Amino acid sequence: MSVKTGSDLITRPTLMINEAQCRKNIAAMATKASIHKLLFRPHFKTHQSPEVGEWFSDGGIRAITVSSVSMAWKFATEGWKDITIAFPFNIRESETAVLLAETTNLNVLFDMPEQAFALGNQLRSVAGYFIKINTGNNRAGLEPTDYSGIDQIISAASAYPLKFKGFLTHAGQTYKAQSVDEILAAHQNSKDILQQLKVRYKAKYPDLIVSTGDTPSCSLADDFYGIDEIRPGNFVFYDLMQMHLGSCSFGQISAAVICPVISVYPHRNEALIYGGAVHLSKEFLQPEQGRKTFGLAVPFQNNIWTAAEGQDHLSSVSQEHGILTLDSDWAKQLKPGDLVAIIPVHSCLAADLLGTKSNSNESF
Amino acid sequence: MSVKTGSDLITRPTLMINEAQCRKNIAAMATKASIHKLLFRPHFKTHQSPEVGEWFSDGGIRAITVSSVSMAWKFATEGWKDITIAFPFNIRESETAVLLAETTNLNVLFDMPEQAFALGNQLRSVAGYFIKINTGNNRAGLEPTDYSGIDQIISAASAYPLKFKGFLTHAGQTYKAQSVDEILAAHQNSKDILQQLKVRYKAKYPDLIVSTGDTPSCSLADDFYGIDEIRPGNFVFYDLMQMHLGSCSFGQISAAVICPVISVYPHRNEALIYGGAVHLSKEFLQPEQGRKTFGLAVPFQNNIWTAAEGQDHLSSVSQEHGILTLDSDWAKQLKPGDLVAIIPVHSCLAADLLGTKSNSNESF
Repeated sequence: MSVKTGSDLITRPTLMINEAQCRKNIAAMATKASIHKLLFRPHFKTHQSPEVGEWFSDGGIRAITVSSVSMAWKFATEGWKDITIAFPFNIRESETAVLLAETTNLNVLFDMPEQAFALGNQLRSVAGYFIKINTGNNRAGLEPTDYSGIDQIISAASAYPLKFKGFLTHAGQTYKAQSVDEILAAHQNSKDILQQLKVRYKAKYPDLIVSTGDTPSCSLADDFYGIDEIRPGNFVFYDLMQMHLGSCSFGQISAAVICPVISVYPHRNEALIYGGAVHLSKEFLQPEQGRKTFGLAVPFQNNIWTAAEGQDHLSSVSQEHGILTLDSDWAKQLKPGDLVAIIPVHSCLAADLLGTKSNSNESF
Repeated sequence: MSVKTGSDLITRPTLMINEAQCRKNIAAMATKASIHKLLFRPHFKTHQSPEVGEWFSDGGIRAITVSSVSMAWKFATEGWKDITIAFPFNIRESETAVLLAETTNLNVLFDMPEQAFALGNQLRSVAGYFIKINTGNNRAGLEPTDYSGIDQIISAASAYPLKFKGFLTHAGQTYKAQSVDEILAAHQNSKDILQQLKVRYKAKYPDLIVSTGDTPSCSLADDFYGIDEIRPGNFVFYDLMQMHLGSCSFGQISAAVICPVISVYPHRNEALIYGGAVHLSKEFLQPEQGRKTFGLAVPFQNNIWTAAEGQDHLSSVSQEHGILTLDSDWAKQLKPGDLVAIIPVHSCLAADLLGTKSNSNESF
């Protein structure tokens, strides 16, 4: 672990990536995919970073997932050639998607025939498409037995250079699970649904694949029977939410936000840090009968964060401020100018807010 | 109201500012300050935009408030010469503050003597400072009767070119109020506390002023007796939270996020929009026994948003997605590719996420 910069240079909330652990997380998920004979198409929305992208590339990854047309454009510019936009297609961005399809192996996502018509009408080269299936997350996608809806999309697309690639889901309900069993049950259910669709459409489309891949399921499950592709993203950094879900250990978390302590208020066991909603987001955890947590505070010294000393946590955040509720002896001795590492509740949002690229020199 | 661009050009979540209404909000608050003989030092953290700053400048405003050293630097670069950083001083940014003090009338905020020592030791020119008082928000500041704490700060600062300007508070608890009466009571309490401190320290520091200024209090109160300065920020755009608090009417809201509709799901009365936590933040409203709301959806046509047709609202957001719960006939007829205007819960966070400058051509 090479230290590239000193903590003295940190003056503001700064995203810090533990590169060694991040590369381990990439290798571990790639190995798991390989053991289960799964295509591994990691989601780049978590890091959105060309540098972290290179670590995937070093690990032999060539196919990626993104969540917007603009993110696809960004990574195409960085040289990525095989991209799935795992968000139902935004027909207002057809023009950009047409350009992307000319230079990359582009897959888009449909859950309405209108999307196929709009893109198809403008396409000048082949693009692949997946049909999005709702397997319980209730965010996007067709219901699993809406065969008429599926057939309408396939029929709409058939007039254009659009190739049906298969079915895709995101079992995002696992993020709200209360137990590992609940995560595994959601995974099993998604798997069953995708498998049924595969059996039904395989005769007519022998090359179709089915794709899933939320981080909790991909981290915890050992049965991927019938699945062809996984697309986890969050696992590259993990975070407090994943630790609470049981998807990772503290040691696997590879991203933290380093924040200066501004003031301390011993009479109320609190400290003020520079680090708020615009750095960490307003995402919180609130275990039943537990306290609301916007992040876990742990020591940070010599450019390394260490394990929690106690229940020191961000109990509230406003735009730029965070209030740290102090529990441990370490925290109670914090002084203005000290640095603390905040393990974010949701690393995808913290990375989006703070960017990983700009702090690449501060990774270790 | 001049339309500068067409809705056709909107392809992604886009912050739109109603310039005419925004200028009215500025003028109304400036007039109120003038009637009550208050210094008006608007908080620029809400918009963070040089262009909106010009509208303040057009209204004769010369003194501003910001919430970070970097924001002070940004607006100093834009030519603003009288800046208060209304966040307890981050001693890790002393170097930048020293440079700012050389070129602007800079005021900083202290709530610990350590902050005065750290900045004072490096200062090469005069800077003003306020002492931050906690009047019930419990985020930052000394307790109102902690005279020993106040005197320690004044004593620490006295060795340096630091000029004591007075006492400052932010009654941010008004954002969590359940009624207008509760807001007015919090305002009254803050006013009383500041007035008591003024009386106590006025003999020794005859020029001292007291400064307050959350948007709910500044919008709703009519009694500012004893107050010298107000620093509201949110009022420039207002938002759904302020409307719920009673601080503004719907017509006074001057910022919305325009989002493309991606898919519709009539069987569950929901639509998917491109617009999520990275555009609107995860801030929500949840009135007692009411539904969680991440934003109010209203029609948007010919570059103008109009009043709500019903209870159409964003019921959940993930990183890039938002789920619209459809209530009105208008909403139930939305189609992929349509645009909706989302009135954000908290305009400060939406503006921070989306930026106002980049969309200045799309303001109307």
